[in-house]
Amino acid sequence: MGVRELGLPERIGSTDSLPSKVTIWEVGPRDGLQNEAEVVPVEVKLEFLDRLAGAGLTTLEATSFVHPKWVPQLADAEEVLARLHRHDGVRYPVLVPNERGLDRALAADVTHIAVFASATETFARRNLNSGLDAQFAMFEPVIGRAREAGLDVRGYVSMCFGDPWEGAVPPEQVVAVGKRLLDAGCSQLSLGDTIGVATAASVERVLDAFTEAGVTIGDLAVHFHDTYGQALANTLAALRKGVTTVDSSAGGLGGCPYAESATGNLATEDLVWLLDGLGVEHGVDLDALVETSVWMAGKLGRPSPSRVVRALAG
Amino acid sequence: MGVRELGLPERIGSTDSLPSKVTIWEVGPRDGLQNEAEVVPVEVKLEFLDRLAGAGLTTLEATSFVHPKWVPQLADAEEVLARLHRHDGVRYPVLVPNERGLDRALAADVTHIAVFASATETFARRNLNSGLDAQFAMFEPVIGRAREAGLDVRGYVSMCFGDPWEGAVPPEQVVAVGKRLLDAGCSQLSLGDTIGVATAASVERVLDAFTEAGVTIGDLAVHFHDTYGQALANTLAALRKGVTTVDSSAGGLGGCPYAESATGNLATEDLVWLLDGLGVEHGVDLDALVETSVWMAGKLGRPSPSRVVRALAG
Repeated sequence: MGVRELGLPERIGSTDSLPSKVTIWEVGPRDGLQNEAEVVPVEVKLEFLDRLAGAGLTTLEATSFVHPKWVPQLADAEEVLARLHRHDGVRYPVLVPNERGLDRALAADVTHIAVFASATETFARRNLNSGLDAQFAMFEPVIGRAREAGLDVRGYVSMCFGDPWEGAVPPEQVVAVGKRLLDAGCSQLSLGDTIGVATAASVERVLDAFTEAGVTIGDLAVHFHDTYGQALANTLAALRKGVTTVDSSAGGLGGCPYAESATGNLATEDLVWLLDGLGVEHGVDLDALVETSVWMAGKLGRPSPSRVVRALAG
Repeated sequence: MGVRELGLPERIGSTDSLPSKVTIWEVGPRDGLQNEAEVVPVEVKLEFLDRLAGAGLTTLEATSFVHPKWVPQLADAEEVLARLHRHDGVRYPVLVPNERGLDRALAADVTHIAVFASATETFARRNLNSGLDAQFAMFEPVIGRAREAGLDVRGYVSMCFGDPWEGAVPPEQVVAVGKRLLDAGCSQLSLGDTIGVATAASVERVLDAFTEAGVTIGDLAVHFHDTYGQALANTLAALRKGVTTVDSSAGGLGGCPYAESATGNLATEDLVWLLDGLGVEHGVDLDALVETSVWMAGKLGRPSPSRVVRALAG
């Protein structure tokens, strides 16, 4: 028994302002797996990607070309991409941190990449070994060369709603970083709540700052972590502001190692449940997705943190 | 590091329509504990109530006068109320299912009671051994006598957003049950999503149906379960409709035995985090509350399901 059997509600009240269709940007294979201590076999990763595409997800962040020393879990990026069963109509973006990563991505015939920027000085120094301004010296050549090669580039902006060292992050600072990524050639920004401290109000504040600065809401995606239980409420706030791309991770896999708890990414299943209830199209077969997450949880040896997975598979 | 250190956001965008202050109706001591298999000692319940009041909660649903055969956990209702350390300005409502329960409540000098109705035929039969219409024969004398004795009466309406046997519940049916409780003398309704299937859209639909029927939004409370991860998003939707009373359970204790998973009540800590972020007053000291939930989790022998408790206590 679920929201599906209860019938889709009519659109009324403030849900009138919701988008009719949302693109789910599935980050499980990359962001979800990257912090797993034990290396997941390539065969499992390939089956995971295949099952996710089979469940109707059309954007699968497949892997990362970060240096294997930093993320040993994704050292098999070339092999994953070479052996990938590509589904029609599915995009397989990969994370590319620098020019060396771009070279690897180009050699692997990737068509969509994502770069990873910081909205704060401290995180830029700690995570990128750079600085708030200096980071662009790293990204701009990557974005430029990728665009010249005909690739689509997404720009992640992390720590958009708060930083564990700096506290509150001024929205104007987030906008400045984001606009510079767009100006450099990114087609979309993913605004990351890397440590899970966003609430509905700060989500609105940051989104409003972007639209006031002339950025189209359709060029913004949101990426929430459920550290303090706010991910889905934040998503609702973003949808009402017109956001049409939402990042999530099948089964709620993953999370930021800098956060104070292991609670990670917004679970795709919980997002799908919300969208079903709101009558927003997403194209995902929830049963197939839940089966995939249960299977993956078995491979990882621990239960999914997704409420929907636990409820439907329990 | 938390939303508090990040500073309260300015009110902008659609958060303008939020209430400035919310009353948290803490149900942990009653709804949270009632399904615990092992009986919690009276001393623990008393300390739990004392700590919750000390953390700033002003409405504590203390216990229930349901027959001890059905809820052995709360068979000590008289003793709890007799030995309770009552804080100034704190209400201690108790659940009263029938006239026998009311007799016990009156003998215990209770000033606030709550009755428990069903929005559906099947749940009325299964849980109340009655029927959708017949249940009022049970409640109306309870409410009438309680009001004559000067007591305040809250009316719970369960299965407002979906029923495991009947599926979707017509909002008009929920409104009919609710209005009859108000007409009988209830001062407030608590609209329960007993199995956790509500989404933001159905919340708005039911609340709109009440206001269209002439019920004041201030007379409505919401009671969400996090079975499918939607409790906080639903709360946000309700706040935006003007609801000013939200039920929650410290540490996320409890849940409905009819749900498909053990995931229970909205955690008070997660609610407080949301309200802090939205700049909505609530009067609760989050640190003291988290300490209380960690202490209670130790007594129950398992970790709190609250994301905020896990993150802050981790």
